[in-house]
Amino acid sequence: MQSPIVHRSRKFETVMQHTYHRIARSLQKSIEAGHLTPGEKLPSVRAYAQTMGVSVSTVTRCYRHLETSGHVVARLKSGMYVADRPIAKSRQRRHLETTPSKAPPLELQKLASLQDRLTQLHSLTTQPMRFALHLANADAQWYPNEALARIGQRLLRSQPQLLGSYPTGTGLPALKQALIRHLASSGVDLEPDDILITQGSTEAMQLALRAVTQPGDTVIVESPVYFGLLQMLEALGLKALEVPSPAHCNGISLEALEYALEHNRSVKAIVLMPRFQNPSGTTMSLTAKRQLIKIISAYPVTLIEDDVFGDFSAATEPPQPLKAWDRMGEIIYCAGASKSIAPGLRIGWIAAGRHQQRINSLKLSSSLSTPIFEQAVLAEYLNSNAFPVHMRTLRQRLKTCVQPAQDAIRRYFPKGTKITCPDGGWWLWLELPEPFDAMDLLRSCVSHGIAFAPGALFSGSAKFQHCLRLNIGRPWDRDMDSCLKTIGSLACARYQNTHQ
Amino acid sequence: MQSPIVHRSRKFETVMQHTYHRIARSLQKSIEAGHLTPGEKLPSVRAYAQTMGVSVSTVTRCYRHLETSGHVVARLKSGMYVADRPIAKSRQRRHLETTPSKAPPLELQKLASLQDRLTQLHSLTTQPMRFALHLANADAQWYPNEALARIGQRLLRSQPQLLGSYPTGTGLPALKQALIRHLASSGVDLEPDDILITQGSTEAMQLALRAVTQPGDTVIVESPVYFGLLQMLEALGLKALEVPSPAHCNGISLEALEYALEHNRSVKAIVLMPRFQNPSGTTMSLTAKRQLIKIISAYPVTLIEDDVFGDFSAATEPPQPLKAWDRMGEIIYCAGASKSIAPGLRIGWIAAGRHQQRINSLKLSSSLSTPIFEQAVLAEYLNSNAFPVHMRTLRQRLKTCVQPAQDAIRRYFPKGTKITCPDGGWWLWLELPEPFDAMDLLRSCVSHGIAFAPGALFSGSAKFQHCLRLNIGRPWDRDMDSCLKTIGSLACARYQNTHQ
Repeated sequence: MQSPIVHRSRKFETVMQHTYHRIARSLQKSIEAGHLTPGEKLPSVRAYAQTMGVSVSTVTRCYRHLETSGHVVARLKSGMYVADRPIAKSRQRRHLETTPSKAPPLELQKLASLQDRLTQLHSLTTQPMRFALHLANADAQWYPNEALARIGQRLLRSQPQLLGSYPTGTGLPALKQALIRHLASSGVDLEPDDILITQGSTEAMQLALRAVTQPGDTVIVESPVYFGLLQMLEALGLKALEVPSPAHCNGISLEALEYALEHNRSVKAIVLMPRFQNPSGTTMSLTAKRQLIKIISAYPVTLIEDDVFGDFSAATEPPQPLKAWDRMGEIIYCAGASKSIAPGLRIGWIAAGRHQQRINSLKLSSSLSTPIFEQAVLAEYLNSNAFPVHMRTLRQRLKTCVQPAQDAIRRYFPKGTKITCPDGGWWLWLELPEPFDAMDLLRSCVSHGIAFAPGALFSGSAKFQHCLRLNIGRPWDRDMDSCLKTIGSLACARYQNTHQ
Repeated sequence: MQSPIVHRSRKFETVMQHTYHRIARSLQKSIEAGHLTPGEKLPSVRAYAQTMGVSVSTVTRCYRHLETSGHVVARLKSGMYVADRPIAKSRQRRHLETTPSKAPPLELQKLASLQDRLTQLHSLTTQPMRFALHLANADAQWYPNEALARIGQRLLRSQPQLLGSYPTGTGLPALKQALIRHLASSGVDLEPDDILITQGSTEAMQLALRAVTQPGDTVIVESPVYFGLLQMLEALGLKALEVPSPAHCNGISLEALEYALEHNRSVKAIVLMPRFQNPSGTTMSLTAKRQLIKIISAYPVTLIEDDVFGDFSAATEPPQPLKAWDRMGEIIYCAGASKSIAPGLRIGWIAAGRHQQRINSLKLSSSLSTPIFEQAVLAEYLNSNAFPVHMRTLRQRLKTCVQPAQDAIRRYFPKGTKITCPDGGWWLWLELPEPFDAMDLLRSCVSHGIAFAPGALFSGSAKFQHCLRLNIGRPWDRDMDSCLKTIGSLACARYQNTHQ
């Protein structure tokens, strides 16, 4: 999982509980017991701080906490009042309020409930997991951290100004050249001015969406879809229109896409992952890509291609990205190094064709520029012999994981469980016989130190709640076998319980 | 100048001219000579590539170039056609088209013309300047690059995973703790959960604006104002309402502010720099700050404080930021390390009070997280003895620059020139007797290797075209004296020419 939730250090949470939590809890009890009545004004922050012998900021924090929990309400510029009735789901309510009013209530409710599901996953996985199969990256030891750190040390020795100088422009020329060479091997033909270096592919995607949409517009996404994209669309005031992208087919259903385009004139963009889609791992065939480009050409929409997993093909003739067919600069291509080389570098890139100038200017007012140091490290690594060796090794390792994982799932999981057979990447998408609640299964698994991403995260609707996404990008060993056995047994037990 | 314009490497421009430019120029001539007539369809990219014996991408780029220059127009999904008449300022036109339609045309025209002025400055300063007094940072040698690079090397030796691991959460706990200690010395009382680490203060400001506004809303800014903020507002579809912040007073005019708030119900936020404003260098007095908070409390607006220059006070009792008076978490505080410690780290921070949760979630969908390596370097530097020594030295150096620079300006500049007398920072704001065109003066200066920021950049209107902003944050020496003498003499000559 691409960590879309803010992880708090447990240490700080403990410290905080010592300060304002104590006071908040006592106030909360008074409200619940009726000692403080609805509409009653709370003392001013200053006065209460003096009474309680604590700092002003502690009381501020305490009041804010009670506001979040729905026990008090802030009346603008007037003060804090006891709420009419404590609102349990005040977070959900606030979420709805802060979202642009244009989007239809149904969509918002869907997203609010997605947010709730993500919060559930987060609260289930605050402890470090022994098998963190819900995460978005391959096993930490599979990344070339040492090699990158050595390059970094050398660069800082010879160019200490790398950390100090003002980074200007759209990216380090050396990195752009390295990327141009790398992308050329996938049939994408670019020049330096065609690329902008971003802070990870997340920023690339955000800039792409902002360049071609206005709040209120609709964006077509695949279903199932990476939940981070749904959250991004919501934050930009955009509506997500989910078009089926069945896990056992060649990517998005072209029939459904054409129908959706024909019947939704507010669609401004389509976001696709044609290579090793997250979460389903599917890859579009050459025929499907050609047909897709033909369909889209009849509508005033922009295709945004998310290719973060593009380099993970296990095939001898890897599929090409859609961008390789882009003759008129109409496809916006987003990718990054976080999956393949180093999650910590936070380096992505965007090649936006005719939208490049607009996107460059949006980047300036979003975050000005991307740190030069990481760009220099990545450029040197891409130009080194270590890079192709690393990618070969990584692909080979992934390849050797898929078969035993699939075998284990067939062995241990409920009869009728469907498993995808990806040509690359580390996602396995499982569909268990319906009805089945994968979020409930997750709850049991975490007590065994195992986490995965339940299917319900990958849509605004609940239609994938019988599915789950496993990250199998880690060494295959007995432990992994016993991990899958545990998930499988717990799943089987659920069916037995149901049918008893 | 905070480099708001994309700098292209000259080398790449040369390379590019060799490829598609040649073909574009020949097509352009054919169109201008009438050999290709308006409405005529150009050959398909593929066909033309074959005819000319060049790659498909070269022709794509050539067509796109002609589209930008207004010689051809793309008809969606159909192809390229010769334009009815070449549009000289097609860039300006496209700028207008891509801006949300809600903003009033007048505002847009203003911004378009600001963009033109920025483009002019950029094209005037593509060559490296001997005296780059238009830049936003102090002299490169005044930053502790070597110390930061040494910390970086040590960290990468002991923790090679810093570049590789997935950064999660709202910021490195060690950096947050260091910032909390640092901000406490300015009277700002925070806990770790009150802070989000961002990619420079630019991202902080962008998140702040997105959290409290919707496209179409109005935001009050100081006038003159840092042009990067005007560009950011435009990119977010927000309207800027400029309220006078006279260079010789205590910051924003409170009378004008109150009037503006009373008469503009669409104002959702106010962005202020109460400490060492860019460009005027003014600082709000304690009385003015108290009054401001009182005024604002009567309106449903959020105050966003930009404090990037906050650490530059030359006074023994430095002024406090507005955030120090924030009792209910209503002020959003943005700052960063780019001015004071290292422009290259791209580290900023935001303390947003009651808006923190919304801003944390916007950050996730904007750029996920900020690189851990730079955060670790900054944390260690802030905790070292070198940091207070660096800040003392930097302030001392700045202090010694102001007096001689002011003296030189009084000596060499036209009679009647007004100069600000900042209590900190490196901005001198000059008002020359009207009428005077500082952009025109800049044109003469660049041939002497001197650049400054003309006043016309600091407003959507042209009202500061007789002003200029000088960055005097560099060692004072004879060269600087002669640089100011050159600017002054060239300015004087203009008045003599006018009155002859």
